[in-house]
Amino acid sequence: MNVLIVYAHPQPHSLNGALKEFAVQHLESAGHSVEVSDLYAMQWKSQLDENDSSSAPIGDVFHPSLDSKHAFEQGTQSEDIAAEQAKLQRADAVIFQFPLWWFSMPAIMKGWVDRVYACGFAYGVGEHSDSHWGDRYGEGRLAGKRAMLLVTTGGWASHYSPRGINGPINDILFPIQHGILFYPGFTVLPPLVIYHSSRIDEARYAAHCAELAERLDTLWQTPPLPFRQQNGGDYDIPALTLREDILPGEQGLAIHQHSKA
Amino acid sequence: MNVLIVYAHPQPHSLNGALKEFAVQHLESAGHSVEVSDLYAMQWKSQLDENDSSSAPIGDVFHPSLDSKHAFEQGTQSEDIAAEQAKLQRADAVIFQFPLWWFSMPAIMKGWVDRVYACGFAYGVGEHSDSHWGDRYGEGRLAGKRAMLLVTTGGWASHYSPRGINGPINDILFPIQHGILFYPGFTVLPPLVIYHSSRIDEARYAAHCAELAERLDTLWQTPPLPFRQQNGGDYDIPALTLREDILPGEQGLAIHQHSKA
Repeated sequence: MNVLIVYAHPQPHSLNGALKEFAVQHLESAGHSVEVSDLYAMQWKSQLDENDSSSAPIGDVFHPSLDSKHAFEQGTQSEDIAAEQAKLQRADAVIFQFPLWWFSMPAIMKGWVDRVYACGFAYGVGEHSDSHWGDRYGEGRLAGKRAMLLVTTGGWASHYSPRGINGPINDILFPIQHGILFYPGFTVLPPLVIYHSSRIDEARYAAHCAELAERLDTLWQTPPLPFRQQNGGDYDIPALTLREDILPGEQGLAIHQHSKA
Repeated sequence: MNVLIVYAHPQPHSLNGALKEFAVQHLESAGHSVEVSDLYAMQWKSQLDENDSSSAPIGDVFHPSLDSKHAFEQGTQSEDIAAEQAKLQRADAVIFQFPLWWFSMPAIMKGWVDRVYACGFAYGVGEHSDSHWGDRYGEGRLAGKRAMLLVTTGGWASHYSPRGINGPINDILFPIQHGILFYPGFTVLPPLVIYHSSRIDEARYAAHCAELAERLDTLWQTPPLPFRQQNGGDYDIPALTLREDILPGEQGLAIHQHSKA
């Protein structure tokens, strides 16, 4: 299988750098083909702007989504964007690896999302009708591919537990796992989160590598997060609210997953 | 009063650009002093890296938080970072204005957070003990200042409603409002969110300006989001989980706010 690792850490000699190297070697030893987008090493351009296309703006002034769509359709996107889209299309699974900075991804990785997720590629795909609101949330160009977050954080597991002050980890990661991964079609695996990352001795490092190895060995078997498909009948369209008879009266992020049986 | 607007949009002739200009003029007309950090115009550097300090790494290799702390304490931070910290210290209120891209802020603004929020400035502040886990979540260097998000999004209000597919807007914004604003001490006001931003005619634009004017006029009176202070007695330390006798059995993001009476 083809695995793409999108990786953001400014220092190769770091916990993240070591885990990334471990993952590459482990996957290659298992016979997979691995590509790595090491965003800091690539000096990835973070800011989406009108220089992302060689076309002139189609309107009077640059418009982020309209000009993104035009550049995607006309083949005038920046080469760095097109190259990452090609990597995504080759990949059977994508691992996004980063340190959790301010409860989200580092800016350089957000800039990868902002720019690579062109209109027409990751959003603005498919028809809009009374029963189908675009190919998104479980449908889209990245459907059939698996994605997983590999995240380190200085906080303790209890701080991200169901009643922890930082918020439950899957709620904190919802904008990424649901909004960035499930939206363009990825099948989203549970994240691998390494807590208390500032205090990792050799024994803990070995344990984390073993855990990572197990997750890599089961990339194609691990049951995904059971997010509900947008166009699968669970949502009223176009309001896109969960049907009243499903989990009646409940609200919040958890209702967008099928309950575990 | 001093108001800082941290603003991120790549095109001045846009809805966001117009709203920003409106806000500046409205605040200045009311006698306030306004500073704007227009991140695209400033060509803000997004990626946190070892070039953010003129000091050599204090260890063998660059370490994001340790070297950030050292540079902050020694006065060797990049000038752009120190200048933004000074703006924050002068400000009585800060407005963060951006289009919601992929359920978060544009990369360039995340890069403002990653770099300006130095260790010793926005985190790693205060003593750690059995009753006090650092000055954070309601305490910290930015305590006493007010902050508000001004956000545009193409999605409809119903898509961000309590049962909307994108997640309730305050849950989607929790990593920012709680994790980025409340964490270093800001008093966080409810966000002003402008939905369906691709279809704004003159009448709707006028209505949004009126709504924005009202929010600016009441910046110092609007009741804030009632987030619970970390060290105020509601959390067990060091687990940092909500005390068992508070909202027993409940979980999720909403438990970190005091219930509205």
